[in-house]
Amino acid sequence: MSLVCTHGQQRTATAPGALHYLKATPETVHWGYFSPTIKPALTIKSGDLVHAEAITHHAGDAPELMFDEGVEQIFTQIDPTTRAPGVHIMTGPIFVEGAEPGDMLEVRYLQMVPRNNYGSNLAANWGHLYQEFDEKERVTIYQLDPTTQTASALYAYDFPGKYLVPGTITSCPVCDRQPALPGVTIPARPHLGTAGVAPAVNEPVSTIPPGLHGGNIDNWRIGAGATMYYKCQVKGGLFSIGDPHVSQGDGEISGTAIESSLNCLFQIILRKDFDFPSPLLETPKHWIVHGFGEDLDAAMKNASLDMLHLLSEQVGLSKNDAYSLMSVAADFGVTQVVDGTLGVHARINRDMFPAKGVAKDPQ
Amino acid sequence: MSLVCTHGQQRTATAPGALHYLKATPETVHWGYFSPTIKPALTIKSGDLVHAEAITHHAGDAPELMFDEGVEQIFTQIDPTTRAPGVHIMTGPIFVEGAEPGDMLEVRYLQMVPRNNYGSNLAANWGHLYQEFDEKERVTIYQLDPTTQTASALYAYDFPGKYLVPGTITSCPVCDRQPALPGVTIPARPHLGTAGVAPAVNEPVSTIPPGLHGGNIDNWRIGAGATMYYKCQVKGGLFSIGDPHVSQGDGEISGTAIESSLNCLFQIILRKDFDFPSPLLETPKHWIVHGFGEDLDAAMKNASLDMLHLLSEQVGLSKNDAYSLMSVAADFGVTQVVDGTLGVHARINRDMFPAKGVAKDPQ
Repeated sequence: MSLVCTHGQQRTATAPGALHYLKATPETVHWGYFSPTIKPALTIKSGDLVHAEAITHHAGDAPELMFDEGVEQIFTQIDPTTRAPGVHIMTGPIFVEGAEPGDMLEVRYLQMVPRNNYGSNLAANWGHLYQEFDEKERVTIYQLDPTTQTASALYAYDFPGKYLVPGTITSCPVCDRQPALPGVTIPARPHLGTAGVAPAVNEPVSTIPPGLHGGNIDNWRIGAGATMYYKCQVKGGLFSIGDPHVSQGDGEISGTAIESSLNCLFQIILRKDFDFPSPLLETPKHWIVHGFGEDLDAAMKNASLDMLHLLSEQVGLSKNDAYSLMSVAADFGVTQVVDGTLGVHARINRDMFPAKGVAKDPQ
Repeated sequence: MSLVCTHGQQRTATAPGALHYLKATPETVHWGYFSPTIKPALTIKSGDLVHAEAITHHAGDAPELMFDEGVEQIFTQIDPTTRAPGVHIMTGPIFVEGAEPGDMLEVRYLQMVPRNNYGSNLAANWGHLYQEFDEKERVTIYQLDPTTQTASALYAYDFPGKYLVPGTITSCPVCDRQPALPGVTIPARPHLGTAGVAPAVNEPVSTIPPGLHGGNIDNWRIGAGATMYYKCQVKGGLFSIGDPHVSQGDGEISGTAIESSLNCLFQIILRKDFDFPSPLLETPKHWIVHGFGEDLDAAMKNASLDMLHLLSEQVGLSKNDAYSLMSVAADFGVTQVVDGTLGVHARINRDMFPAKGVAKDPQ
């Protein structure tokens, strides 16, 4: 089985094919679900570039800042009762010619540029400390500085009632706006919270739980310069993107990130030469596996088994060696902690491995 | 309540006082336990420097490489039946003049230098994937390159029987030595796995579970250049160090790191001007809190509450602001996963805060 991409080895030279533009419109987004029955918004060949718009479902938290004509059409024309069973606005799906179930889509994320310079963080009813905050929900609006690639808070307000309808539009001119986080400057980490292929299930699948198809992984390292590998479940893969963030911490503890629309440039390459059981991330420095589960302990176990799989089946170490290396050099982090989306990821430094790859060891 | 150490502010100029040497001998170590009844191995004043030897309890995994006369005396002269209820060789305790229960010890770790250039990783019976490896235990011996600050595997062997006695001396010339991790080079992260003050309990306390006194936190960031704050439980603090590692990943998944003896230089400063409920770590870039619990979910909740406490009580943010900032910028990681030592830590970037500190916000 071939390596994913060995340190020191040049990536396969895959010259970009056509460049496609995929605007987010009521016709090219699906809100709250993945499904193999959605008509493709775009059909591409392996190697093609796609410039696609990802729209945050939290734009309604500050519509005067985060809406434009395109965003407003999505929020006003898509029936709120159809935004189910999940919450995220997904742009796509993209049909990749020749992709069959079991093939891998290598998605090279090249650019993620904020659509506007504003984002929203909701301390949500599904957040980790909701009870500790007496079941109060609160919105903090952030402003982005594209020059310094940082974010700072603009104002905050207590959310009136309970945030239950995805894409709620809050009339905040009548809210009690309060200053927030004076003088605090946050490094931006633009990334996609949710992206993935259509699961092979004959009903709409919620965008909320992450899974083998990708979905709501919420790893802030899924940004420009990173490559994700998603395993196709259906013909064409049917890849969609959404849930754009400009910053998030590992854990996403309040239930949301700085949610902000992004314009994304990526290249999709169809891979039939290797297989991996769960969504795999490659950054310039690391390989990162993702484990999910009913609780953090189950997610931890799954992440550790997938790291073992990566190091043995892909990198070529013996299982014994892989286990020792994991203990002394792999870093396990909490990706997110909301019920139903619990995730742990594990990072291993690619620079540790010899440039020519590891000789397979049968022991 | 004063800040721990505000970004941009010079540390309090605490000129080093006397320099003390604390060799590890059968008389100056306590193996397996903390206790307030141990006679101090050293008495110092606030601001003094200590150069102390920390000895790994895994030196017996490769005695021909990891033993010297001093280490051998500890392994041969301390009755194995007294190495209880924990496993770690602790050097100390150090009595700090004037320290009272509730005071904080600020321990500035300045140097951690390997005593020899070898270390051991045990895939242990308490490791996360012990069952998946059919209850096999295996030792991998690593060699350190002090020039490049890296480690590489020298050889490995299956441990004969079950590793139950702390400080077992394995006669590996008769073991089946196998090559391991060919060509893999691991960045070194020298640190102390276990360090802390004596708990106020009138019986020996195991070194294995971490707690409010510090103990077996196993965060690889507790190395040279980092500062830990431990809350004194008893008069004098009675601080001890042990469980030295030259590298470990977040999670310490096989149950051990690269266990290797270290010579440590540190300065201890008695702080009576602030309080923190759990062991707090300060690195050049981050403040890091530690949560412990019966499972990862409980540890996660404790780490999140302590990060909230840090950002509100110490940094001066409102609780509302602190919660939003944690979600968008604090990274939660799995420190270790062995039953009884489950830990989650949370890192927040200190550079985000204004140089002059945050104005206290009463909201």
